[in-house]
Amino acid sequence: MDEFTLIEKYFRPLTEGRAEALNLQDDAAVLGVPPGHELVVSSDVLVAGTHFLADEKPEFIAHRALRTNLSDIAAMGADPYAYQMTIAFDKKPNEAWLKAFTSALRADQKEFKIFCSGGDTTMAKGKLTISITTFGIARRDKAVKRSGAKPGDALILTGFVGDAMIGLKILQKKLKIKSPAAIDAYRKPVPRVGVSHIIARYAHAAIDISDGLIAEAQHLSNASGCAVDINLESIKFSKTAETLLRSKKATVEELLTGGDDYELLLAVSQANVPALLKDLKGHDLKPQVIGAFTEGKPEARVLEKGRKITLKKSGFTHF
Amino acid sequence: MDEFTLIEKYFRPLTEGRAEALNLQDDAAVLGVPPGHELVVSSDVLVAGTHFLADEKPEFIAHRALRTNLSDIAAMGADPYAYQMTIAFDKKPNEAWLKAFTSALRADQKEFKIFCSGGDTTMAKGKLTISITTFGIARRDKAVKRSGAKPGDALILTGFVGDAMIGLKILQKKLKIKSPAAIDAYRKPVPRVGVSHIIARYAHAAIDISDGLIAEAQHLSNASGCAVDINLESIKFSKTAETLLRSKKATVEELLTGGDDYELLLAVSQANVPALLKDLKGHDLKPQVIGAFTEGKPEARVLEKGRKITLKKSGFTHF
Repeated sequence: MDEFTLIEKYFRPLTEGRAEALNLQDDAAVLGVPPGHELVVSSDVLVAGTHFLADEKPEFIAHRALRTNLSDIAAMGADPYAYQMTIAFDKKPNEAWLKAFTSALRADQKEFKIFCSGGDTTMAKGKLTISITTFGIARRDKAVKRSGAKPGDALILTGFVGDAMIGLKILQKKLKIKSPAAIDAYRKPVPRVGVSHIIARYAHAAIDISDGLIAEAQHLSNASGCAVDINLESIKFSKTAETLLRSKKATVEELLTGGDDYELLLAVSQANVPALLKDLKGHDLKPQVIGAFTEGKPEARVLEKGRKITLKKSGFTHF
Repeated sequence: MDEFTLIEKYFRPLTEGRAEALNLQDDAAVLGVPPGHELVVSSDVLVAGTHFLADEKPEFIAHRALRTNLSDIAAMGADPYAYQMTIAFDKKPNEAWLKAFTSALRADQKEFKIFCSGGDTTMAKGKLTISITTFGIARRDKAVKRSGAKPGDALILTGFVGDAMIGLKILQKKLKIKSPAAIDAYRKPVPRVGVSHIIARYAHAAIDISDGLIAEAQHLSNASGCAVDINLESIKFSKTAETLLRSKKATVEELLTGGDDYELLLAVSQANVPALLKDLKGHDLKPQVIGAFTEGKPEARVLEKGRKITLKKSGFTHF
């Protein structure tokens, strides 16, 4: 199979016949942005063995690649639109691999209402490397940034934290428990693009917690120029996480710094919290108020019974 | 040096302080498209040892990565705007490498009037892999596509063909001649974005010749649904290429199929050829009319004294 057959058979269907992709026949796509709107653009690169398990199944590579990137679009309060994808294959992919990979992408495209507008593929004896640039549409000047949190704002987490870390440990056989939900949290995270419009309506600032809750709260705090307090007692964990905590198979530190979760942290004025929580109902989220922004120099403080505690690790980078 | 220092010191300056990049502080950039315009988007992935020499100097990796991608924007008749870049480093880059790489990018940014709007970096023991997604701005419905060539249109090449292939062979020590111009054609190709507006005004179709002149003419022909004749006698080569042809150190086939050149092929109505050539004057190009589109099934025919000849190879793919 040559490059043209590969594109024809597996990648062209990802365009969903959208005019913008020009049938992958040109060297570029042509995207339109409605009047009064802006294009939100985010890029991620994923390398086998670093961002997904080296022997991961193609469908889960696809899910992670696309969904983690869409999470950034959600954090900006933008509606997903399209994506460009480049793939450097480490070896000639077989048809079964390609079929599973692109089928998973199409399923996600349908779920999140996006299409592939273009990209590039090559083969080089390195590691399978996937780079995705996702596009979202936001109303002009309404994209939600990290920098808008104000002292007094509530800190809201859209779901559970720590489950992806548990899922990864199960897959790595470092944890011998059963939890399909935790495995899904790692392998098939749900980007919160379904509530982008609600985030755009209420959030002063937002970020996903892919590098760990504490590290990401710190990012919000730095960008906004104020401190943020996280109340440990306020955080509800999933049943799986609770069980691990009770049996000492996991620590709170691990859960809050583990990363790979794609829930969002939002800064919302206290007055708007009830309306936000009401609007989020019916969206299959478990939002929780876990802290508040306060006057003071940028710092993410973890409080236990009102007293600051120190965690061993604040987050991680892939560098 | 951690990831944040890397971004702060080397990548943030690439944003040129543009508001769209949000100071690389967010997970996304926010791009604006002027009313009545569209965003032209093109992606390329380059892997060490495949798309550039494994031991290539950082400045030339930067030049090739950005310029080859900008060439696609030029072929669409769009004005360059911004780019996203992801880099998977194969090893921790040293500061000298980073400085040379980003300095070369900034020089090109200045030359081609673009800025870096965002991206992602990671480190994984594979091969240095750079993926760039470039944005251009075109007037609505005026982006130039491959599919617009009409029978009767002249086929115009914006410069010389084959020089990049010669440059690569010199660098690989397969050719023992001196030609800084040929080496530059490979290492530091000039994307024709400086004449994008002229291309948008006159060209029915356009493509760059990165995969070889014959293969790309074939692409134009396929997309436009008509044949194209290339008159061998009409093609002027550079002095270096002519010398190699005369001394039998290169063949016409090699020059026409070698690839890595970033001149453009344009389809322009015969009536507009004089005006196009006049407008291109003063832009440091050497445009030449090398053939014409004709009625008939899609095919790129090479004619010598009016008779069709067969080349051994039509182009190459990286797959």
